[in-house]
Amino acid sequence: MNIGVLGTGSVGEAIASALIENGHSVKMGSRTASNEKSIEWVKKTGKNASQGTFDNAASFGELLFLCLNGAYALDAVRSLQLDHVAGKIVIDLTNPLDFSKGMPPTILDEFRHVSLGEKIQEILKGAFVVKTLNTVNYKLMVDAQIVNKGDHHLFVSGNNADAKNKVMHFLVDNFKWKPDRFVDVGDIKSARTVEAIVPFWVTVMQALHTPLFNFKIVH
Amino acid sequence: MNIGVLGTGSVGEAIASALIENGHSVKMGSRTASNEKSIEWVKKTGKNASQGTFDNAASFGELLFLCLNGAYALDAVRSLQLDHVAGKIVIDLTNPLDFSKGMPPTILDEFRHVSLGEKIQEILKGAFVVKTLNTVNYKLMVDAQIVNKGDHHLFVSGNNADAKNKVMHFLVDNFKWKPDRFVDVGDIKSARTVEAIVPFWVTVMQALHTPLFNFKIVH
Repeated sequence: MNIGVLGTGSVGEAIASALIENGHSVKMGSRTASNEKSIEWVKKTGKNASQGTFDNAASFGELLFLCLNGAYALDAVRSLQLDHVAGKIVIDLTNPLDFSKGMPPTILDEFRHVSLGEKIQEILKGAFVVKTLNTVNYKLMVDAQIVNKGDHHLFVSGNNADAKNKVMHFLVDNFKWKPDRFVDVGDIKSARTVEAIVPFWVTVMQALHTPLFNFKIVH
Repeated sequence: MNIGVLGTGSVGEAIASALIENGHSVKMGSRTASNEKSIEWVKKTGKNASQGTFDNAASFGELLFLCLNGAYALDAVRSLQLDHVAGKIVIDLTNPLDFSKGMPPTILDEFRHVSLGEKIQEILKGAFVVKTLNTVNYKLMVDAQIVNKGDHHLFVSGNNADAKNKVMHFLVDNFKWKPDRFVDVGDIKSARTVEAIVPFWVTVMQALHTPLFNFKIVH
């Protein structure tokens, strides 16, 4: 499958490389086509890997992963041509975090009463935005089994039930998530409360001295 | 032990009644000594139960539980005489929730960059404020075993390590929490990110259709 990965940080690289390992073709997108990190990634990855602008990656992918820094995510999303994303599923991994006040981060003021997920869906009108993976470390995102044999939960928000189902299946097939360990928390508006737990995630990481943990819901 | 429970809602009543069952003497405090709910509670509970103002309860208890509505909690805390709480452990169960915009709730604007736990510690200078229990349903607070045989986590914030230890022991001895299922997340400032997950807790409750669940951290 052709997949666009927008973002060249730890998350973008982990997702892109894992997708390549799973036999997909990946175009990594960044602000400019001359981005050193994505050029380097293509060089080291070889076959099936390419890079370009955010819009090049969006155009290339049948499925898109947004692995953007929350503070700049909307600028990147606004740079996409709407007809390059129409009808596509956009997996949104972004978090609206403000690290300027130290650790743990806070939520950026402009996302006090709205989520990044909702704003992205609002901008990418014709796409199906699914918020997920944003509550776990990037190593865990692409291999759910490395923590507690995959027995922990992932939260999924989005307006379209079919798109959410397809994303869950994709994560099961590619990143070893367990089919019964997803919690569909509702429409894209539900991303508000999910994004808001990420500063707490950082607090727990500091207490445990490892980012390799997750929350399991027990009842 | 003489214990003061400040608050007459579902949380206050659950805590107060469970403490009585564990053989403690409890004074339930509210804004006025003529509060119908606390008078009713004393009538139905009988022996070892009494009621009065917030300050009466604070004065009576060697240990205090703050089970107050977040929107009014600081008013209640400000009504306490400082020498009635000096040197005492104050278990803070409050959450700064704003239900005015519908469900799930948001965090009250004034607690955007500070926690209720910190404000309470600031006001009650001589007391040892320990934030905990605020991330679970009131039925689970007083009997940790009713969910997954107690195998799930509770978060503890506070400036004084000894006070946190005493609170954890108290919760083990009285409310059946497992000794190895606490996460000490740091000083009282860490209550910020913990309080901020409660709207997410409500989102999960809506998805699961039950308030009887909790988060277990797996790694």
